Amino acid sequence: MTPTFSVPQAAQSSPGQSLPTESRVWAADLAQHAGERVLLNGWLHHTRELKRVLFLLLRDGSGVAQIVVEAPEARALVAALPRESVLAVRGTVVASPAAPGGVELHEPTIEIIEAAAGEPPVELFRPEPGEQQPTRLEHAAVALRHPRVRAAHRLTAAAVEGFRATMRAHRFVEIATPKLVGEATEGGANVFPVDFFGRRAYLAQSPQLYKQMMAGVFERVFETAPAFRAEPHDTARHLSQFLSLDAEMAFIADHTTVMAMVTEAMRGMIAAVAKCEAEVALLGIEVPVVPVAIPQLHITEALALVSEATGEDVRHEPDLAPAHERWLGEWAKATHGSYFLFVTGYPMVKRPFYTHPDPARPAYSNSFDLLFRGLEVVTGGQRLHRLADYRAAMAQRGIPEAPFAGYLETFAHGMPPHGGFALGVERWIARLTGAENVRETTLFPRDLHRLTP
Amino acid sequence: MTPTFSVPQAAQSSPGQSLPTESRVWAADLAQHAGERVLLNGWLHHTRELKRVLFLLLRDGSGVAQIVVEAPEARALVAALPRESVLAVRGTVVASPAAPGGVELHEPTIEIIEAAAGEPPVELFRPEPGEQQPTRLEHAAVALRHPRVRAAHRLTAAAVEGFRATMRAHRFVEIATPKLVGEATEGGANVFPVDFFGRRAYLAQSPQLYKQMMAGVFERVFETAPAFRAEPHDTARHLSQFLSLDAEMAFIADHTTVMAMVTEAMRGMIAAVAKCEAEVALLGIEVPVVPVAIPQLHITEALALVSEATGEDVRHEPDLAPAHERWLGEWAKATHGSYFLFVTGYPMVKRPFYTHPDPARPAYSNSFDLLFRGLEVVTGGQRLHRLADYRAAMAQRGIPEAPFAGYLETFAHGMPPHGGFALGVERWIARLTGAENVRETTLFPRDLHRLTP
Repeated sequence: MTPTFSVPQAAQSSPGQSLPTESRVWAADLAQHAGERVLLNGWLHHTRELKRVLFLLLRDGSGVAQIVVEAPEARALVAALPRESVLAVRGTVVASPAAPGGVELHEPTIEIIEAAAGEPPVELFRPEPGEQQPTRLEHAAVALRHPRVRAAHRLTAAAVEGFRATMRAHRFVEIATPKLVGEATEGGANVFPVDFFGRRAYLAQSPQLYKQMMAGVFERVFETAPAFRAEPHDTARHLSQFLSLDAEMAFIADHTTVMAMVTEAMRGMIAAVAKCEAEVALLGIEVPVVPVAIPQLHITEALALVSEATGEDVRHEPDLAPAHERWLGEWAKATHGSYFLFVTGYPMVKRPFYTHPDPARPAYSNSFDLLFRGLEVVTGGQRLHRLADYRAAMAQRGIPEAPFAGYLETFAHGMPPHGGFALGVERWIARLTGAENVRETTLFPRDLHRLTP
Repeated sequence: MTPTFSVPQAAQSSPGQSLPTESRVWAADLAQHAGERVLLNGWLHHTRELKRVLFLLLRDGSGVAQIVVEAPEARALVAALPRESVLAVRGTVVASPAAPGGVELHEPTIEIIEAAAGEPPVELFRPEPGEQQPTRLEHAAVALRHPRVRAAHRLTAAAVEGFRATMRAHRFVEIATPKLVGEATEGGANVFPVDFFGRRAYLAQSPQLYKQMMAGVFERVFETAPAFRAEPHDTARHLSQFLSLDAEMAFIADHTTVMAMVTEAMRGMIAAVAKCEAEVALLGIEVPVVPVAIPQLHITEALALVSEATGEDVRHEPDLAPAHERWLGEWAKATHGSYFLFVTGYPMVKRPFYTHPDPARPAYSNSFDLLFRGLEVVTGGQRLHRLADYRAAMAQRGIPEAPFAGYLETFAHGMPPHGGFALGVERWIARLTGAENVRETTLFPRDLHRLTP
C-alpha cells in the first residue's frame, strides 16, 4: 500500500478517440459498487486523523467519498498535502453505515495527479461557507467548489432544463436572438453602450421585440439567454447580467392564457428541481407545491388588501413596493397555502409601450407579475398586436417609429393576439433556496462594482 | 357558410388560468383528426383559385393546411384578403390523397382575426425564397416565416437540444457565465468595448476561462450562449454574434478524450436533427452519418497530403487555408466515406496561451479542429493545468498575470488535466443544410454593416 506518485499516462501512442478505458467510478455511484475495487478521481476535500486511521474525504463532480487510510506512509503523505490537491484513488468499496452514502473505500492506493500550491483561500470543508460574500466572490474559482454552493447551481441547471422541456412539450420552439441592438428595448436609461464598429449599439435588456417577431413565425417561442441591465443601484436582487427565461405565444385569449403557461413552466421547473434529491437534501430546502391554479389579485385588490392590513393608504399607488410584495407573499401563504401569487392589471403607465390595455379599464393593463415567496420573479402580459395600436402608443410616449421599422413590420403583416413572459433564473433560485442575495445564486456576478473574476 | 368577422372573445370575465378551452388543432396534426370538425389558427399563406373552388393554404407554427372554399361569398372574402392575414378556420377534416399531408378542410367557417395591411415585402409562398439576401435580412420579421427558412431554424433548435442532452447524459452540468469581461479572453483585437458604469469592459469572445474554472467545480460543464467577435471582414462564415456550444471536462488523458466527447456530441446533434423528419424532407437534405471513429490527420500529415495533391508546397505553413480545408473535406469523404475529419496538433504559435503542448513535439499542440464538409466547425484541445505552465506561457507571450488573477487561482488550487471544445451552431447548421452563407442560418445576423432589425 505504498502510495504511487505517477500522473495518468498520456495517450500519445493511441490514435483512437475513445473515452478513458479504466472505468472511473463517480462518488455519487459508489454504493452501487460494494465489494468491487474501483478508481475514484477527485479533490482532497478534507481529512480527519484518528489514532490509527485517517479519513480522507475525496470530492468529485458528483459528491464526496470517504476513504479509510491506514498505512502509516499513506497517512503521512495525505496529511502533508494541501486541501484541493487532485488525486486518483484506487480501493475496495465496503459498506459502512456510518460513512456518507453508506459506503467507504478501504485499502487505498493514492496517486497524486496534481498537488495544490497551498491551502485554499476559502474553507470548503465546513458545512456552511464561513467567509463574507465579497471574499467568496473574489475567490469564486475556488469558493464555488463548496458542496452547498455548487448544489444551488446544479438546481439552476435543472430548473433551466425543466423550463425548456415544459416549453418544448407545449410546442414552443427555441430561438437565439441578438444581444447587440440599435435601440433600448425596454426604454429607460439602464442600458450598456457598446462600440459596434464605431457605431453606438446597446446590450439587449431583453429579447422582447425579437420574441414577438418570432411568435409571428413559430407561434410559440422561447429563449434562455443572458440579458443586460445597467442597474446603478447596489441591491440584493439586481445584477448587470442575468439569465432570462423568455417565452412568447400567439393566439391567446388574453394575459390569462399566458398565466396558464407560466403555471405550467413553474410546475416543470419545480419538478426538475425535486428530482435533484441529493442537492435538495444537502441544502435542506422545502420544494414548494405549485397550486392547480395559482391565486391571483388585481393590482387594485392587492393595494386595497395592503392598505387594510397596514393602515397605510396605498390604494392609489401605481405599483407595489418591496414591502407590499413581501406582505402579499405572506398573505398568499396564509390564505391560499401558496408560495406563488399572480398580481394582475398593473397600470399602463408602469408598463412598456408594447403592453396591451385591459379593454374594460384602459388605464390598467392585461399584464401580470408572479410573486414567489413575496418577490416578483416573472413579468408578463398580453402585447399590442395591431399596427395602429403601436403607432398610437409610441406617439403617446414620444417613441420614434423609424428605429423600430423592422419590428413594426411584424404587425403590418398579420399578428394575432399574443403575449409572453420573462423570468430571471438567479432570482428564482434564490427564492427557492432561501438565499438573501441574488449574488449567492450567480456563478460570477456582474454589478456596479464587480467585473472580475 | 357566411364568414364571420369576430375576433376571439377576451376572457375578462374569467378569473381562471386555463389554456384556451376550444381545442385548436395544429396543421401538422390534422391527419389525426379525419372526420372531425376542428378549429385551425394561422396565417393566409397562399390561395389558388379554380373555377368553382378556392384552395386556401393556411400556415401555422407547425405546417401548412389546405382548406377547400366553395361558397362564393367566402371565396370572394378570401381572394380579397392580403396574404399573411390571420385567420381562425373551422371545418371538417377530409382525407384527400392529393392534399399536403393527405387531408384537407371542407365546409369552412372563416373568421378574420387580423387582416394584414398589404401584401408582404417578400414572397413566402414560393418553394424557395426568391429575393436577394439583403432584402430578406431587412425584412426578417416576415421573411423568416417562409416554410423552408424557418425549417432550418427548427433544425437549429433540435441540434442545440441534442447537444445539451448528450452532454447531460455524460454528466456535464450546464453553466451560465459572464458575457461582460475585463479582459479579452482569446487575445487579439476582435473584441467589442462596452461602457460598463464608466469603466472599459469587453463582450466575451468565448466562455473559455470560466468553463475551465467551472471544470474545477463540476468536472464536466457545458454552456449554450452567445459569443461575440468584432470581425472586421465581411465573410460568409463569420458574424459578430453567434451561439457557441461549449464544453469542458476534467480528468482527461489528453485531447483525444475530448475528441471522443466531440464525436458523441456530433452523434447526439445529428440524431436530434434526423428526428425532425418534416423539416429534413422539406429542405431535402442528407443527414450525414457520424462514423464510429471520425478519421483524423495530424496537421503535418494534412499539409503533406495537400502539398502532394496540389503540387503547391504548404508543408511548412502553420495553418490550413480555407481551400486546404475544402480539399481535406473531399479527401475524407473519398477516402473514409466521412463528412467529418479531425485535424490535430496545430502549431503552438497558432493557438491561445492556455493550450497544452504535445509532450512529444512541444512546437505542436494537443489541440484539434473538426472539419464538417470541409469547413472548421469545432475547435478544441487539452489546456494547461499547472500554474507554473500558465506563468511560463503568459510570460512568453507578454500577457500580464494581474488581470487574470481570479482565473489563475484555479490552477494554484488543484486542477487535473482537462480540455474542451466550442462549436458555432449557425455555421454547423449551414454545413448541414448546404447554406452558402451563415447569415442564412442566423435569425437576425449582426455584422459590420448590420445592427437591425
